[in-house]
Amino acid sequence: MPELRKDPIIGRWVIIATERAKRPDDFRSEISGPPEQGECPFCEGNESQTPPEIYAIRTTPSKVNSPAWDIRVVPSIKPILRIEGNLDRHGEGMYDLMNGIGAHEIVIESPRHIDNMADLSEEQIDKVFGCYIMRINDLERDHRFKYALVFKNYGWVAGGGRIKHSRSQLIATPVNPKRVKEELAGSRHYFEYHERCIFCDLISQELSLQERVILDVDGFIAIAPFASRFPFEVWILPKRHHCDFAKDEFSRRDLAKTVKAILSKIKLGLGNPAYNYIIHTAPFKRPKTGYWKTISEDYHWHIEIMPRLTRVAGFEWGTGFYICPLQPEVAAKFLREIGV
Amino acid sequence: MPELRKDPIIGRWVIIATERAKRPDDFRSEISGPPEQGECPFCEGNESQTPPEIYAIRTTPSKVNSPAWDIRVVPSIKPILRIEGNLDRHGEGMYDLMNGIGAHEIVIESPRHIDNMADLSEEQIDKVFGCYIMRINDLERDHRFKYALVFKNYGWVAGGGRIKHSRSQLIATPVNPKRVKEELAGSRHYFEYHERCIFCDLISQELSLQERVILDVDGFIAIAPFASRFPFEVWILPKRHHCDFAKDEFSRRDLAKTVKAILSKIKLGLGNPAYNYIIHTAPFKRPKTGYWKTISEDYHWHIEIMPRLTRVAGFEWGTGFYICPLQPEVAAKFLREIGV
Repeated sequence: MPELRKDPIIGRWVIIATERAKRPDDFRSEISGPPEQGECPFCEGNESQTPPEIYAIRTTPSKVNSPAWDIRVVPSIKPILRIEGNLDRHGEGMYDLMNGIGAHEIVIESPRHIDNMADLSEEQIDKVFGCYIMRINDLERDHRFKYALVFKNYGWVAGGGRIKHSRSQLIATPVNPKRVKEELAGSRHYFEYHERCIFCDLISQELSLQERVILDVDGFIAIAPFASRFPFEVWILPKRHHCDFAKDEFSRRDLAKTVKAILSKIKLGLGNPAYNYIIHTAPFKRPKTGYWKTISEDYHWHIEIMPRLTRVAGFEWGTGFYICPLQPEVAAKFLREIGV
Repeated sequence: MPELRKDPIIGRWVIIATERAKRPDDFRSEISGPPEQGECPFCEGNESQTPPEIYAIRTTPSKVNSPAWDIRVVPSIKPILRIEGNLDRHGEGMYDLMNGIGAHEIVIESPRHIDNMADLSEEQIDKVFGCYIMRINDLERDHRFKYALVFKNYGWVAGGGRIKHSRSQLIATPVNPKRVKEELAGSRHYFEYHERCIFCDLISQELSLQERVILDVDGFIAIAPFASRFPFEVWILPKRHHCDFAKDEFSRRDLAKTVKAILSKIKLGLGNPAYNYIIHTAPFKRPKTGYWKTISEDYHWHIEIMPRLTRVAGFEWGTGFYICPLQPEVAAKFLREIGV
């Protein structure tokens, strides 16, 4: 069973992922990407090579775990958190820990062996987002979970796996993530003072300045954030306010168009680099009183895309600051001008 | 001039390092380590290839910027922050930014072309720590600075440079780092409740359990922290309480012995991996009232060593949680048993 452990000093949770546990000797060769080999378990026709599917969008009425699908969701074969069991939070001396309960699902984004999401059609990307929404809303019904994070690791240095088949991951956690709590606290603080959503204000400032806007496609805006951590970092935000990705009735086709354009610009302009993306949305539980009472007014869901072109070093680990060797305004201009 | 920019949502500072600025096209090949080539500017005899030295420990009375030295401190040739100028903090619409004022120094740890600090003698490592102390106390006199961080990037994936010559870096910043503030807040919170230092309690719990202790050499203890972020993460703490690395009168030889032993165990046991280390110490300014009034009682300086054997991926960026695929108890046992 994986364990969640809390750092007693700063309160940061760490997952000791025993399902992925290795012997100490196995860490020696971890750092360079191994070559792809063998049959791809995510390709159409190889359904038996994954755990049984949780959900699929099928092209024709076909049996589960058989061909004829557009998107397929399966449990991770090496889950970071385990779905079975009860939450058991307890102390060990001065330390806090809990069972590593959660969900860890893989969203297979295409029946074909395509590596980069940039190369999927808008229609296919639209279905991927539809699939995220379906799964998040289903996981919300499990009362053990407080949050669901969608993320993607493309390329070896971004944490991508051995198999080069486009997919994303969904993890539901029994505690709210530190980074999300920081965003919630920051946006609430702003709302208390201004009675406006900080993200909405940010969007209108960026639209009027036009210095960091990369794309402005109907319902969505893509910007290089003012305080970018990484060169060519991109945020995609819905222009109409909503705190919750899975409850918002946005145009999925607009989002797919924006995501495909940005990922294609990154691929073409920067030589197909590794990247991560994450969706930040409101937590499942939103009490009407206390700390989070204004969450639906003051938080705003968004996507963060981080090309992995630089290395995170001692200064970043020691300070929590980031060093970005490129001005976001220059990055925005560069990406804006790449035709896709 | 580099710029410090603040993320308006979570208040995280980012350094837009214009001195290191590149054209967007230059990022394409950043990710793999280039081969070492040319003469090493850090070797004895090549003093003219670095900026003029700030400080040196000389073996014989010799001229500055000439041979016959044990340790040499020079300004970074590509400083992240610039020493000249005044602090100028201002707003730009909803955004905050300030001039990138600070110091960025390189501590050259040996006159010989040795790559890994693990291969320096204890005597030499002792001098390196003496040098840090000297430089931090000098930088504290500059009233523009609030904090000095010592760190080391060894190996390409850890952010190390092209030149394979053992060195560390010292950066003085005009704002307190987020990670240090989190530690200060956490340890103050504990102190308010228990009236004891959380690190002192942690040391005594670890010493009595003996599950995660790697080394216990006179004045210092090396442990695998309970909530390790990375496999084989190691913390080195002075057993006698002190908040300030540069003011504490610890045995430098004891510290050098511990650091050399730990770095050698990591090198031998894990196949000479890349690693980062950082020294976390109290900020320069410690008002006697308000927020930080008890800092000297509740904070405890320490060193964090992070071998870079795994890749940080989307889940970590999205949540601020870390996934560690090895139990700290297993890591501690493994490192404990490696003879050096």
